Amino acid sequence: MTGTGLEKPTHFVVFQPSGRRGQIEEGTWLLDAAHDLGVELETICGKMRTCGKCKVRIEEGSFERYGIESSRTNLSKIIEKEHEHLGTALDDGYRLACAARVLGDVVVFVPEESRAVKQVVRKSATERVINVQPAIRKVYLELRPPTLQNPLGDWERVTEAMHRVFHLDNLAIDYRTLLELSKTLRAGHWQVTLTLWMNREVVRVQPGLVDGSIGLAVDVGTTTVAGYLCDLKTGAVLTTEAIMNPQVSYGEDVMSRITYAMTHDDGLAKLNKAIIDGLNAIARNATDRIGLTPDEILEVVLVGNTAMHHLYLNIYPEHVGKAPFPPTLHHSIDVKARDLGLLVHPSANVHVLPIEAGFVGADNVGVLIAEEPYNQDAMALIIDIGTNGELILGNRQKLISSSCATGPAFEGAHIKFGMRAAPGSIERVRVDINTLEARFKVIGKDLWNDELEPDQVGARGICGSGIIEVVAEMFRAGIVDKTGRFTKGLTHRRLRKGEEGDEYILAWANETSIGRDITVSIKDIRALQLAKAAMYAGAKLMMRRLGIPKLDRVILAGAFGSYIDRERSLLLGLFPDCALPNIYAVGNAAGDGARIALLNTDKRDEANRIARQIDYVELTVDPNFEREFMYAMHFPHMKDAFPNIEAWLAKEGAAPAVLAGLPKAAPAQAIPSVVAGGS
Amino acid sequence: MTGTGLEKPTHFVVFQPSGRRGQIEEGTWLLDAAHDLGVELETICGKMRTCGKCKVRIEEGSFERYGIESSRTNLSKIIEKEHEHLGTALDDGYRLACAARVLGDVVVFVPEESRAVKQVVRKSATERVINVQPAIRKVYLELRPPTLQNPLGDWERVTEAMHRVFHLDNLAIDYRTLLELSKTLRAGHWQVTLTLWMNREVVRVQPGLVDGSIGLAVDVGTTTVAGYLCDLKTGAVLTTEAIMNPQVSYGEDVMSRITYAMTHDDGLAKLNKAIIDGLNAIARNATDRIGLTPDEILEVVLVGNTAMHHLYLNIYPEHVGKAPFPPTLHHSIDVKARDLGLLVHPSANVHVLPIEAGFVGADNVGVLIAEEPYNQDAMALIIDIGTNGELILGNRQKLISSSCATGPAFEGAHIKFGMRAAPGSIERVRVDINTLEARFKVIGKDLWNDELEPDQVGARGICGSGIIEVVAEMFRAGIVDKTGRFTKGLTHRRLRKGEEGDEYILAWANETSIGRDITVSIKDIRALQLAKAAMYAGAKLMMRRLGIPKLDRVILAGAFGSYIDRERSLLLGLFPDCALPNIYAVGNAAGDGARIALLNTDKRDEANRIARQIDYVELTVDPNFEREFMYAMHFPHMKDAFPNIEAWLAKEGAAPAVLAGLPKAAPAQAIPSVVAGGS
Repeated sequence: MTGTGLEKPTHFVVFQPSGRRGQIEEGTWLLDAAHDLGVELETICGKMRTCGKCKVRIEEGSFERYGIESSRTNLSKIIEKEHEHLGTALDDGYRLACAARVLGDVVVFVPEESRAVKQVVRKSATERVINVQPAIRKVYLELRPPTLQNPLGDWERVTEAMHRVFHLDNLAIDYRTLLELSKTLRAGHWQVTLTLWMNREVVRVQPGLVDGSIGLAVDVGTTTVAGYLCDLKTGAVLTTEAIMNPQVSYGEDVMSRITYAMTHDDGLAKLNKAIIDGLNAIARNATDRIGLTPDEILEVVLVGNTAMHHLYLNIYPEHVGKAPFPPTLHHSIDVKARDLGLLVHPSANVHVLPIEAGFVGADNVGVLIAEEPYNQDAMALIIDIGTNGELILGNRQKLISSSCATGPAFEGAHIKFGMRAAPGSIERVRVDINTLEARFKVIGKDLWNDELEPDQVGARGICGSGIIEVVAEMFRAGIVDKTGRFTKGLTHRRLRKGEEGDEYILAWANETSIGRDITVSIKDIRALQLAKAAMYAGAKLMMRRLGIPKLDRVILAGAFGSYIDRERSLLLGLFPDCALPNIYAVGNAAGDGARIALLNTDKRDEANRIARQIDYVELTVDPNFEREFMYAMHFPHMKDAFPNIEAWLAKEGAAPAVLAGLPKAAPAQAIPSVVAGGS
Repeated sequence: MTGTGLEKPTHFVVFQPSGRRGQIEEGTWLLDAAHDLGVELETICGKMRTCGKCKVRIEEGSFERYGIESSRTNLSKIIEKEHEHLGTALDDGYRLACAARVLGDVVVFVPEESRAVKQVVRKSATERVINVQPAIRKVYLELRPPTLQNPLGDWERVTEAMHRVFHLDNLAIDYRTLLELSKTLRAGHWQVTLTLWMNREVVRVQPGLVDGSIGLAVDVGTTTVAGYLCDLKTGAVLTTEAIMNPQVSYGEDVMSRITYAMTHDDGLAKLNKAIIDGLNAIARNATDRIGLTPDEILEVVLVGNTAMHHLYLNIYPEHVGKAPFPPTLHHSIDVKARDLGLLVHPSANVHVLPIEAGFVGADNVGVLIAEEPYNQDAMALIIDIGTNGELILGNRQKLISSSCATGPAFEGAHIKFGMRAAPGSIERVRVDINTLEARFKVIGKDLWNDELEPDQVGARGICGSGIIEVVAEMFRAGIVDKTGRFTKGLTHRRLRKGEEGDEYILAWANETSIGRDITVSIKDIRALQLAKAAMYAGAKLMMRRLGIPKLDRVILAGAFGSYIDRERSLLLGLFPDCALPNIYAVGNAAGDGARIALLNTDKRDEANRIARQIDYVELTVDPNFEREFMYAMHFPHMKDAFPNIEAWLAKEGAAPAVLAGLPKAAPAQAIPSVVAGGS
């Protein structure tokens, strides 16, 4: 910016592959030109030409206007530093964008590794792109050593350079990192890479130029804890690691753990230690698998339901376990890993996602920022099926959430032959509507039972998705009726009276590894009915609150959601009717949400905003809950029509009584808004 | 502030004892009127009328204008809350300033306990007033319990109230305090006192209304560690506690400890643990003495020289031990007590005062903010005498600092019969210039040795101040000459040749508890000469840098400075000549500085500002140092005149050779500025 009235000439600059282009004033550094045109280039040295990260390839650019000695570009001369960093790549047209000035028209190609903002594409029913903008950033500094004339302290030497080179002020350094500073500066001969947290705190110092950082996102489920070790530069998942929540030994579900914490003097301490040990195991195993150590982890994001949230933060969970369920805090919180006892980098920050209310916790917020229903027109019901069912209903106009006590039936518990999804568990079932014979498939085998010799089948029990399939198929075949009772008068070699009443033999003893018939009893069906009715009633009451007659989408989150069969879960009435292609699973969306929050700090702000905006509705106190729950005990429902499942049954086949027994579609006012009173 | 054009009437309000007065609009709360007139009243409930702290006594105010029913004031009616808080005090004219509106002229007396800004007067040669404005503040909140309609999280319930009542936003809560929040809110039935740090972080929650906090200021000396337990509300010192620095077992002086840290694998860890254990002992003993526990301590301030600073922060001290002596950091730093291993309140903050350079550490900054030479016209030399001598020279125009390696002679080490100041050590000495006989006084006895029976004297050795006195007296009596040698040809029953050459018998064996004569040898005198010459040369070179011919003040800081005799230390030439009344001790100014920083956060900012502004001069590399050092080996000096000591000797009496041998006063140009070249 000279003060003369003469304007400098401009040149046409194009950046590929983005195609961003524009007129750039002569003499502008290519790095600044890129920035002006909206192309962010990698640089961790603050244009000091010491990191060599901003390399670009010159595609077009001729000499006719200036005839300057320059490697086939309309750019300023190659300087010594470029020889150092690029070597023979110079012959291929590479330059450092921080060392080349625009002197003529140029077309510049930005290689993937030089792009500052990486993106991660999340494969879901709807593809989403996440910009990689983590809390962690690396910068490289070359400092002058202290002298008697300038004996400035080491930290002040760093802050002075950070101000000068990166224009960052008010920088702090974490106490534990401060302890390493002086040695590291000297080990690196005053060339050092700093890791910054939120551009305000130095959390790591490393000698020399070191690029890349890793972070860990963990979804702490009541039963399963899933960790995602991520590259904080590229956003890539480096490895995943899942373990059973070690708190299981203190109680299978949330309430039993809260009770344990309340009734034992050291209950909270034990539960906290169990999960912290588990998180440390995940960090250790995941880093070990890729040849690193846990202290390479510089940032951690945790999500979990409200009880898990309190337990991993070591907060007494009594009050989230009883009405009115106020948590100790809603908002996200940043805690030093060392304060939590996490054995990652001692200066690492742990970001705990916000929670909504009661049992709807940070994991639900993870689902929200992953699925973004608040950015969609479609009216979606998001169901996170775990030991507790968590429900979100809404679109960009309005969003509400709730939770329902489904109990562990969907996970195979409280079912006589129920078991976790593991080798030997029956996960797929088909019942012939004519012969009433069953075929099934167990986890760990590629073939169905009737394609194997009986002694090769090795069934051990039925997992959650298997329970849904077998009961849905029994209903479709007319073995049980819409009330869940075994059809009267039916006789079959697979039907008998057992200790728990009527039962259907799914696997013969010789097909099992337990030496007993695997059966589905009236009691098992009752447990499933209770679970599904709670979920359906919850969804129904939420729809009523918003005055919504039908759903555009049903999104099944949670690992379990990925395995259950959409037709058969709809047939049983786990949730209200919806077009079958619009029912889809998104896997562990809570884990995805954790990973998104790890990679993008804007999404953390979004999480806090959404968690505050979403209305949590407490359904158990709704005066209509009991009646809705009772209606929903039927397969698929006592009152509500399921046109989509009706069409599917017509195509797929079903016992005549099933089709005849389905409630008939009523006009839209079948589901009046809550203002209009009961149905 | 109604929107009408009519102005409200105003009334004349006077606050006593400050006498602040002015016209106040009718209807204004007395608390706001006080604020408008510059009188800050105590209130920790944010005018919610729940704390009862703002009570005032109405001195004058009559009814004639309004005839309102009101306790002999021109104020609004007494309300129920005032009955609750004041009871019978209402009859004495007390009101709550938050509950009374101005309706007529009033004279209001503000009792001491209701004044918000307490002041502490520091008794020194120059009295200073410190406003009590600590980092710690308490506020009292009354919250509504959560309901199903408002199940807001506990922390959000607090932040919402803090915003509403105290207009504080962006409040954080320390992780360890968060863990106590939910229980405490319920224990206090939703009435809770929060302790805020810097108005931005909650560091303690207590049920109900609790006033007052305590803090600990510690001066970590190389030899002595002195702690001051302070009331953070009144500023009062509640108790003091001093211990020997436990690091002494790893080395007596700074260099030997740095060497220990460098040459032992776990050297730093041991040194750090020693001082942290020592600080914990101070916190424990001090709180125990006043019937409290260490976790009542909510804020800690530490000062120490650069080596101590690094060691208590657990920072490897290698580089501060060798040229160019860069510390790991200069600026003050706030660290959580738990990160340092301090067993005070786990959420307490530790504020470590900034350091200047090299060996001039945070303790010197403590001296600075206590003595404030930068606010004075007088040209002062501040000497902090410890194992290292630290020097500050200047006034409001310019300030420089330096350090000199005096060694431990001033503390009684490297002296044959030297010992620490403790019972049995000789601290006062007088030598009769005619008889050359000595009288002395030992610590722990009220009488001089010749006023006691010999076996009652019990001398064990000579402490630092005793060394200075005996050598000064031996010089005054002509026993040693200005070069420090024993005067040739002198014979006396107290003079003899010992193992270390000439020596003077100060105490006869029968006056000691060690069964041997206590002597002062030529070697002891040499050690003292080396120490005093280093200090004098340092001061002289600093004066030369600033072009200053003479000192207006000499301020002796450090506990040792309080015990040494100003005339005799000047006679020996520990520092350049100065008018005797202007030489004074200020006790442990470093400790005072720590206490000031504990009580007033503005002084922390001042400390950082001054530490940055002060020029540290490295004297050992000054080309004139060696020559100045040599000149300064003489008593009092080889070249420089001491008119003030000459006058004193003339009055007090001295051997004729002493007076004759003093250098004669030269014109002011005797000490030219450094620009003019050498002397």
